[in-house]
Amino acid sequence: MSNFALRDALDGRWAHVRQAAREQLAGSHFVAVPGETLEQSRERISRLIRELPTDPGIAAGFPIAYGGKADPGGSVVAAEMLAQLDLSLMVKAGVQWGLFGGAVVALGTAKHHDAYLRDIISADLMGCFAMTETGHGSDVQNLRTTCAYDPRTQTFDLHTPYEAARKDYIGNAARDGRMAVVFAQLITGGRRYGVHAWLVPIRDEDGNPMPGVTIGDDGPKAGLLGVDNGRLSFDHVRVPREMLLDRYGQVAPDGTYSSPIENDTRRFFTMLGTLVRGRVVVGGSASAATKSALTIAIRYGEVRRQFGAPGEEREIALNDYLAHQRKLLTALAKTYALTFAQDELVGALHEVQTAEGPADEHRQRELESRAAGLKAAQTWHATRTIQTCREALGGAGYLAENRLPGLKADTDVFTTFEGDNTVLLQLVAKGLLTGYRDAFGSLDGWGRATFVAEQVREMVLERTAARSLIQRLVDAVPGRDEEVALTDRGWHLRMFEDREKHLLDGAIRRLRRGASRKPERQFDIFNDVQDHVLEVASAHVDRVVLEAFVAAVDRFPEEPLLAKMCDLYALSEIEAHKGWYLEHQRLTPARSKAVTAQVNALLAQLRPHLPELVGAFAVPDEWLACAALREEPGRQEVMAAHDDQALAPAS
Amino acid sequence: MSNFALRDALDGRWAHVRQAAREQLAGSHFVAVPGETLEQSRERISRLIRELPTDPGIAAGFPIAYGGKADPGGSVVAAEMLAQLDLSLMVKAGVQWGLFGGAVVALGTAKHHDAYLRDIISADLMGCFAMTETGHGSDVQNLRTTCAYDPRTQTFDLHTPYEAARKDYIGNAARDGRMAVVFAQLITGGRRYGVHAWLVPIRDEDGNPMPGVTIGDDGPKAGLLGVDNGRLSFDHVRVPREMLLDRYGQVAPDGTYSSPIENDTRRFFTMLGTLVRGRVVVGGSASAATKSALTIAIRYGEVRRQFGAPGEEREIALNDYLAHQRKLLTALAKTYALTFAQDELVGALHEVQTAEGPADEHRQRELESRAAGLKAAQTWHATRTIQTCREALGGAGYLAENRLPGLKADTDVFTTFEGDNTVLLQLVAKGLLTGYRDAFGSLDGWGRATFVAEQVREMVLERTAARSLIQRLVDAVPGRDEEVALTDRGWHLRMFEDREKHLLDGAIRRLRRGASRKPERQFDIFNDVQDHVLEVASAHVDRVVLEAFVAAVDRFPEEPLLAKMCDLYALSEIEAHKGWYLEHQRLTPARSKAVTAQVNALLAQLRPHLPELVGAFAVPDEWLACAALREEPGRQEVMAAHDDQALAPAS
Repeated sequence: MSNFALRDALDGRWAHVRQAAREQLAGSHFVAVPGETLEQSRERISRLIRELPTDPGIAAGFPIAYGGKADPGGSVVAAEMLAQLDLSLMVKAGVQWGLFGGAVVALGTAKHHDAYLRDIISADLMGCFAMTETGHGSDVQNLRTTCAYDPRTQTFDLHTPYEAARKDYIGNAARDGRMAVVFAQLITGGRRYGVHAWLVPIRDEDGNPMPGVTIGDDGPKAGLLGVDNGRLSFDHVRVPREMLLDRYGQVAPDGTYSSPIENDTRRFFTMLGTLVRGRVVVGGSASAATKSALTIAIRYGEVRRQFGAPGEEREIALNDYLAHQRKLLTALAKTYALTFAQDELVGALHEVQTAEGPADEHRQRELESRAAGLKAAQTWHATRTIQTCREALGGAGYLAENRLPGLKADTDVFTTFEGDNTVLLQLVAKGLLTGYRDAFGSLDGWGRATFVAEQVREMVLERTAARSLIQRLVDAVPGRDEEVALTDRGWHLRMFEDREKHLLDGAIRRLRRGASRKPERQFDIFNDVQDHVLEVASAHVDRVVLEAFVAAVDRFPEEPLLAKMCDLYALSEIEAHKGWYLEHQRLTPARSKAVTAQVNALLAQLRPHLPELVGAFAVPDEWLACAALREEPGRQEVMAAHDDQALAPAS
Repeated sequence: MSNFALRDALDGRWAHVRQAAREQLAGSHFVAVPGETLEQSRERISRLIRELPTDPGIAAGFPIAYGGKADPGGSVVAAEMLAQLDLSLMVKAGVQWGLFGGAVVALGTAKHHDAYLRDIISADLMGCFAMTETGHGSDVQNLRTTCAYDPRTQTFDLHTPYEAARKDYIGNAARDGRMAVVFAQLITGGRRYGVHAWLVPIRDEDGNPMPGVTIGDDGPKAGLLGVDNGRLSFDHVRVPREMLLDRYGQVAPDGTYSSPIENDTRRFFTMLGTLVRGRVVVGGSASAATKSALTIAIRYGEVRRQFGAPGEEREIALNDYLAHQRKLLTALAKTYALTFAQDELVGALHEVQTAEGPADEHRQRELESRAAGLKAAQTWHATRTIQTCREALGGAGYLAENRLPGLKADTDVFTTFEGDNTVLLQLVAKGLLTGYRDAFGSLDGWGRATFVAEQVREMVLERTAARSLIQRLVDAVPGRDEEVALTDRGWHLRMFEDREKHLLDGAIRRLRRGASRKPERQFDIFNDVQDHVLEVASAHVDRVVLEAFVAAVDRFPEEPLLAKMCDLYALSEIEAHKGWYLEHQRLTPARSKAVTAQVNALLAQLRPHLPELVGAFAVPDEWLACAALREEPGRQEVMAAHDDQALAPAS
């Protein structure tokens, strides 16, 4: 069942990249293989990474001069499409071209680009992004690896001081990587200048570790078996001076340090900010996997029947059960919503990263915040939804041949890599509290608590999508909620906004109160309200997502299903937070119950359209790699009908 | 940190079985091995199953005459302990002794017991429990496999009519099983008598399939790699008459059918009811795995530090963050609660299955209902909590060497096997609506809707634990809630009760209204309120669990931590359902906010006791099989302290 208007809406701005991927990656060659061993998977992925089409491809983000297309948005969408095919393939590609190649582009200068980019793009030079350490994952500003300059030899001394400072979970390290971008504390002239990055060879031509480099294997993982994660330690490894990726900080031959950004913290988070694309890719990839899972579960629920009912000739299709709709259709509506929000985010990333002239720091911070928030929202939604889909297939969902175990296991790590979700939401909240003035991309634990508490801004709500449309809708809502239709879009927007505003105001009040009381432990000022502050961030992300959906509905007025899905998303979120709304008297008890009834009514209206709603994701059949859906068409149905007659109880 | 009173409370009635298992299963011999291949895992588990100590053991449930101990409660607890060690081992043992052996005991008669039980107990005769079919998992009353009696040959003809009727997901089938208890529609004299079970050889002495039997392999699964799940099809296989397990239905040589239970449906669900133990084991095993996961995450959160704070010498331990406590400590409190409820359930099972005299049908139905509800509650809690623990370890939680991937993957199927959780909750609700009069153990889709709607009883709330104590506590609560302390246990009980009662009353009203309107599709009468009805079941289970916790607090008055954990459980559940309580004016907005503040206050009070609270599960270190916890004691801490000094910023 094809609904091209829906598909166009969901494909969004880079629809051409999606469509090209569906065509170019056709054939079983690239499709995920369930039940592989670690070695089989690593071997296959290492091979395929060199066979990927390049246009469109993840490498589209590279500068035109080196063979790229200067299309950062397109590269993100290309990565999402790879994720829908095989998550190991996406992560391996993301490590090579996104993290490793991306760091060389963003943190290096012409000499590095000239020397390495072509080989990186062609995958002749495989590399790693070595930031995380065993002891420091979230708090990367405090990495323990050191890199000290010695003017006598004009080299750096890269060193891992102890085991917990080793680089860990590093993709491409255990098997394929020949170089690594290594993050370490730069020391020169007896002073530390914070974390910088160096290009460091880790294996020689024969694949043996370079002198002083110890390489370990992280071994079997929950998923992503095709990605060779490993550990790197450095024992006073000599790194030539010119291997410092020196766009944001230079060391002269005599050891003199210079940088366009004076403050160490600000410099480091500016460097990190250039790498925001990875986080956007992970969020989008999580949603790509969610779409595959929902396609499988909903198509299965359409043919799978269980339990008869009086007066029914056939057993009931799973999709006809309200409980099933409550699980899958609401998750589908949220997936639509997140798709539109992600499309907008990719657009914002594209504008920022292709803008001429000096960087707009405010827009950059806002982009980082939105990338963080949507990464958290999409990856948690993926984890929950894929689990739901697994359960919706019963025992069949537990078999590798039906794909869901792979989708679940592969995406699981997304909630904690490229930034732990809880830490990311804290970053979002910090941006909201300070108006991005001092947020950097810092993931710190609210270190300077009193400082932040004093700086918290007066709440100003910034709209992200279709500002004037949304303002018009909100303004059109009459004063008293009880009079407003439950499906009034302006009312939905106002409810989401109200929640964000009120939560933010409350957090500001509580932080100020805490700071003025000056408790002994400054840490407690923030920790006492951490749950509240995280809720601020969630409410903010919810609002951004709804605004994106509303803007999409406005762009496709000819498609009534889109409007209904938007209603379902908005109302099921309001229902999910009805505790808050009732507590703050934004819903009366009667209206709260009416919301639940309206959600059920929408489910009944949308149920007949389920196949077309999920079909609009346009995931190619073979990409689903699901045995239960490969049965001859109609076979199950024919058998069931035949069977109900043949075995009707004789008693 | 040992707290023996807490451990005693959690170990419960079969503490001696738990302690014996901890001692007998010491040594690395039985411990889970992360990262095995399918073949390695199957080989290891097949070997270990024959090396398990038998006293205490799962086989304790068998009759004394055949070498068992007639201790069904002890056998369940022994299974839980195996689950804590290795879930594949538990499931393999559960298939052999619980499902296969259990069916021979419960559905067979002396001739079967004499011929097979000793070999089953010794594992010399490995067997399968072949009920589920590819096309029918939940609706087992409508299995399609047929077994028709032919008086001329005095044999049955066992037949799989088409592919979707093959037996699927059958443990022990793919590799080790030599016989199977096969469930099929019994046909004799041209009439069907519903589902019965036969003992059928599936492999010969050399391990080759018997004539007419086709054996398939379900292949790689999400987890439980050590269990050889497979598929069985029968092509007109001749089964001798005496292989019918004929306790509940006999076929004479001439084909005459007789049974002590006339109604086919009632007979089948009576047969199923005797197999309730499997469901109790799965629920308990899910909690056993949850305890391992929480032990790992909480011990890790005690030593793992991230982010500094002003005025703090060292970085902050993860367990000190409110967000971390919100995730792990509330899950820990619920795990305590479920442990006490499971202990009571095992006690009830033990009483019913060791009772002399005729079966008490009401108690049997109540047992089945409670087993269903607690299985659903414990397995969903396990899935959610183990996921939370995985995330709490960040990247380390994704590595097989840290155990959480295995715990997650192995327990995942528990939410849908031994009864799909949603279907089980429907069964619970049906029991509540009809007062067990017509509930059987039927998992049907509310087939006879109008019938049930007319029969729904007047609501009578039956207490499960410590009836008089609980009534006293509830009665002591003054009339107006606002005057009652938030930690008043009677108030907690009344809130849980109120929710169950009100939801049940509402469901009854809505069902009656739906039935009186007589819509065209009777299916809709129930389907329209399915979400409401499932909520009734959840609320009921919540209440049963709280009552079990309250009774445990009363048994261990000397342990104040237990009372605080009970408060935390009760209040965090009330908080989780605050939407309902506010909607139904059981909470004022002000009191609802106070509940959240009280939960946070309890977290702060309990936080210093986290190690001892989780230590009370007494999971042996080596059973955890977690590399991150095997580091030399204190090493991380020493390094971190040293390091904070050594690398204090120079700028």
